[in-house]
Amino acid sequence: MAIPYPHYENNIMVAASNSSSSIPPVILTQDELKKIAAYKAVEFVESGMVVGLGTGSTAKHAVDRIGELLRLGKLENIIGIPTSKKTHEQALSLGIPLSDLDSHPVLDLAIDGADEVDPNLNLVKGRGGSLLREKMVEGVCKKFVVIVDESKLVSHIGGSGLAMPVEIVPFCWKFTAERLKMLFEDSGCVAKLRLGSNGEPFATDNGNYIVDLYFKKDIGDLRAASDSILRLAGVVEHGMFLDMATTVIVAGELGVQGAGLRILMSNGEVIAVSATFFSEIAYARYIGDIKIEEDPIQIPAVSDLCDIDRRTAGHFSW
Amino acid sequence: MAIPYPHYENNIMVAASNSSSSIPPVILTQDELKKIAAYKAVEFVESGMVVGLGTGSTAKHAVDRIGELLRLGKLENIIGIPTSKKTHEQALSLGIPLSDLDSHPVLDLAIDGADEVDPNLNLVKGRGGSLLREKMVEGVCKKFVVIVDESKLVSHIGGSGLAMPVEIVPFCWKFTAERLKMLFEDSGCVAKLRLGSNGEPFATDNGNYIVDLYFKKDIGDLRAASDSILRLAGVVEHGMFLDMATTVIVAGELGVQGAGLRILMSNGEVIAVSATFFSEIAYARYIGDIKIEEDPIQIPAVSDLCDIDRRTAGHFSW
Repeated sequence: MAIPYPHYENNIMVAASNSSSSIPPVILTQDELKKIAAYKAVEFVESGMVVGLGTGSTAKHAVDRIGELLRLGKLENIIGIPTSKKTHEQALSLGIPLSDLDSHPVLDLAIDGADEVDPNLNLVKGRGGSLLREKMVEGVCKKFVVIVDESKLVSHIGGSGLAMPVEIVPFCWKFTAERLKMLFEDSGCVAKLRLGSNGEPFATDNGNYIVDLYFKKDIGDLRAASDSILRLAGVVEHGMFLDMATTVIVAGELGVQGAGLRILMSNGEVIAVSATFFSEIAYARYIGDIKIEEDPIQIPAVSDLCDIDRRTAGHFSW
Repeated sequence: MAIPYPHYENNIMVAASNSSSSIPPVILTQDELKKIAAYKAVEFVESGMVVGLGTGSTAKHAVDRIGELLRLGKLENIIGIPTSKKTHEQALSLGIPLSDLDSHPVLDLAIDGADEVDPNLNLVKGRGGSLLREKMVEGVCKKFVVIVDESKLVSHIGGSGLAMPVEIVPFCWKFTAERLKMLFEDSGCVAKLRLGSNGEPFATDNGNYIVDLYFKKDIGDLRAASDSILRLAGVVEHGMFLDMATTVIVAGELGVQGAGLRILMSNGEVIAVSATFFSEIAYARYIGDIKIEEDPIQIPAVSDLCDIDRRTAGHFSW
């Protein structure tokens, strides 16, 4: 089936009228939105790649999808580098061949979720507690594709009102938490030790604690903030991922077209994609029982989208 | 017994002739030199202080001495903040009241050894493996007195040819070690995982590993080097203690006077003290069975030495 090229209105790409006028907008749950973004991200994966496997509810969909494409023989010779014990187990159960950074210190690609994305594609990660391993893996990949639903877009780091996590050694954690708080006193910082479901301090895969920082105001220069945090003895790593994401895929509402994707590039460009038109998930859902693997050809590759983007897409803001 | 004031020759304070001409130079072992420096450092301790207790063969003498002065009633109401589990045990056995940084986030004083001291009083620490807790404690003290024998003086950090330790998380340690090595490639850096006596990786009090870095050349800007190391995900802390020492007490040879002390101040001044004249250890050793506690009055306080120094001492170099 040929795919009609979309046209642009106000820098938002919408489905061509002949494919969308006769069908109602798609309404998706947050988890379905995450799944759309995750599946789109997996289009970046090519056979033979070493791929960083993220952790969290969104990344889980991407790992599932990689496992499915391997099983279907549509991907081959993938080596996965998991970013947590949990992802390691998930990937093992899916039969994805695994390795580690010691054996593969450079990765072709990593795919992971994020807790916040700012307009410069700086991220907050680590609300799931895997920030250190994620940063180790995602800091050495040629492409880092981030997948989020649109609730994660913020005007500035901390802008969601939710936590910016910092991994610290357990030794004298109150002291370290207090020093972190003082560092961002001007931003009305509150520092809280993260607790597990049993009421005990949450322990990371590395046996450390997490202090969650909440900011009332923008903390300003993120590079300077990063260095200030890292200079505190007792801090292991923080959840700001600066200048690391090369692509962010955002699933959410796209005006009259219903759910869709926005693909944000680190050069400031953005591609918007209507899910009713493009996404295999939305498509399958809309027309009932059509499965992705039964009609994969109708899904354009992200690389094609990028070509479209370079010709016509505008710069991104929200 | 009255103490004659010393006079100065070439900016080196030597014992007044009437107290030293009749006695031969003192020859001391390296451990005795360490002990002299440690005992002199403990003169900075005053009753009621919160004191950071260092770790290692030199610091051990200082902790012993504090315990002794408490037992003799010459110090009271000291609260010790140990920098390692080992020092914690030593101090407990000596009856020194202990607390931690959570309860006492600001210290009056800390006393510790060092593996290297450069001309700007920047240190390398951590060959004993306690660098993280030491840096946490010693980073928040009003005075930080470092005690070394003169073999620790270097023209630049790494200049001893011995290790600059970096504490890292065990996860993918080879990867992190390789990245550390690459960071200082221009200085001919070699990175080695530290092993314990059982041949297994040495584990710190925090359950982490140590990678020892060896430099063939000066690494240049230490602040920049510090930030580069700390920015590597996987690094917990490094052993460079920059701009932290306020005083360094060096035990070693002092020309014709035999063993003695040099007290280096962070403002660049130096006081040299002949051990045959000043040091209780050398004194006791020289005259046989006279114990420190039996004749403490003959030992001038460091604060008096500082007054002398401000009038006449020259600037330090080696």
